[in-house]
Amino acid sequence: MKLISYQHDGADSYGAVVGDRVVDLRRAFGERAADLKSLIAAGLLGEAARVVAAAEPGPKLDEVRLLPVIPNPGKIVCVGLNYGEHVRETGREITEQPTLFLRVAESQLAHGEDIVLPPESTRLDYEGEIAVVIGKAGRRIAEQDAWDHIAGYACYNDGSIRDWQSATPQWTAGKNFWRTGGFGPWMVTRDEIRDGQVMTLVTRLNGQEMQRTTTDKLIHSIPRQIAHISAFTPLAAGDVIVTGTPGGVGAKRTPPVWMKPGDIVEIEVDAIGILRNGIRAE
Amino acid sequence: MKLISYQHDGADSYGAVVGDRVVDLRRAFGERAADLKSLIAAGLLGEAARVVAAAEPGPKLDEVRLLPVIPNPGKIVCVGLNYGEHVRETGREITEQPTLFLRVAESQLAHGEDIVLPPESTRLDYEGEIAVVIGKAGRRIAEQDAWDHIAGYACYNDGSIRDWQSATPQWTAGKNFWRTGGFGPWMVTRDEIRDGQVMTLVTRLNGQEMQRTTTDKLIHSIPRQIAHISAFTPLAAGDVIVTGTPGGVGAKRTPPVWMKPGDIVEIEVDAIGILRNGIRAE
Repeated sequence: MKLISYQHDGADSYGAVVGDRVVDLRRAFGERAADLKSLIAAGLLGEAARVVAAAEPGPKLDEVRLLPVIPNPGKIVCVGLNYGEHVRETGREITEQPTLFLRVAESQLAHGEDIVLPPESTRLDYEGEIAVVIGKAGRRIAEQDAWDHIAGYACYNDGSIRDWQSATPQWTAGKNFWRTGGFGPWMVTRDEIRDGQVMTLVTRLNGQEMQRTTTDKLIHSIPRQIAHISAFTPLAAGDVIVTGTPGGVGAKRTPPVWMKPGDIVEIEVDAIGILRNGIRAE
Repeated sequence: MKLISYQHDGADSYGAVVGDRVVDLRRAFGERAADLKSLIAAGLLGEAARVVAAAEPGPKLDEVRLLPVIPNPGKIVCVGLNYGEHVRETGREITEQPTLFLRVAESQLAHGEDIVLPPESTRLDYEGEIAVVIGKAGRRIAEQDAWDHIAGYACYNDGSIRDWQSATPQWTAGKNFWRTGGFGPWMVTRDEIRDGQVMTLVTRLNGQEMQRTTTDKLIHSIPRQIAHISAFTPLAAGDVIVTGTPGGVGAKRTPPVWMKPGDIVEIEVDAIGILRNGIRAE
């Protein structure tokens, strides 16, 4: 399934995309699962698939207002420096442990919305990534068990305000500007992407390819990330892991490339789809 | 008022500490405010004070199970390197912008509970700090308006697993081990601490003083922190800002001092009270 969170007729909902239509799962599950995170946490993805198979199609996809796939994750853990080419372009070194930072929910936006360039900076950069949505809670998850804790995958644009990111030793501010992190267009459930399947990730800015990689080049694999993160913190359903960006970010080009109002940035993952966002000045 | 979140008779609640008793505000406000964060967000602190003045005392303070002051903050923003002596002992430099990192809610624990030393490390360190709880939402809050966005203050122990903190360029993992961040014992509301009042912060380990400072030594003042953080992200009621630790952390002593099972660590702030936690091995 392709699962989305969205607003329609003024109400928050969530559902499945079937062709160009949406099946409203919020209505189907009522108080049993008020949002997509709750649906996942309640272990209802299998039942949701049966509901979708039997349901009348609802509103057209282009008539609903998409929200970030999970609008209210308990935590968003991002993995930095996780493709060799990107590590090299930043002049840093590969570490034995994954380099992690956190994003807050307010930094996210949906497919189709505009990434916001704040007046505080002109150095807005893209980072194409694959997001993993946690399906089953756990602590100290072994690598070989990690796949069973995944609900699904989405595209992510880890939009970064580079001067604020590098102004101090910690990247937090530059990684958390309001509405800089694109998350969408939907979550493809794990049953549709084979565990360990090599996915191709491409970033395009105004149609021009800026980043390209495949997930077999991840320094710290997805199971390794889940094992490492859950070593220090419990992972919960709906938590999001953003798995790293490859080489080719705008900041490390000569001359640097910054996204500006009117630009269109796309993150495409072959097994998922395309996350497309415009840029607007705040 | 001294406001707490707690469990009693198996139910989550929140209330005010009066002497050695607790006034149950959850019962008083019912559906109007299900938790302390909601009470603050609804602007009900003034009404809560009137309720407390007229209320019958409830359970004894030592009969309830305290929770972290805000068990469910939307975000916990921590300021690093914010006292000169601590910057010097780390060998780092003062930056124009505050150095920020985030903690997740699962990393917190209450006054009276044990900080958890995980099997992954022996390098558990204390960091005595003052936490600010946001009372009024805002974005791009001017420094001169910042005090009006504060609900109150609490003690915080930004417990750190130092080898995981320094294993990569970002401190996230070492700052987010489960149940390492003490937050309590209560929030003293802003009306009881004059805006800009110089507070004295002391950390004791097994009764021995390890850290001491006053808040006039903050490199980035509390209003400056609020202005800076709200420049990139909206602050919401119940958000927590942890304002920085002074010199004297265990990691930078010769020889280093690590907290071990059976230790007692106290963070005392004269205007707030004492946050006391034991240490236990997981």
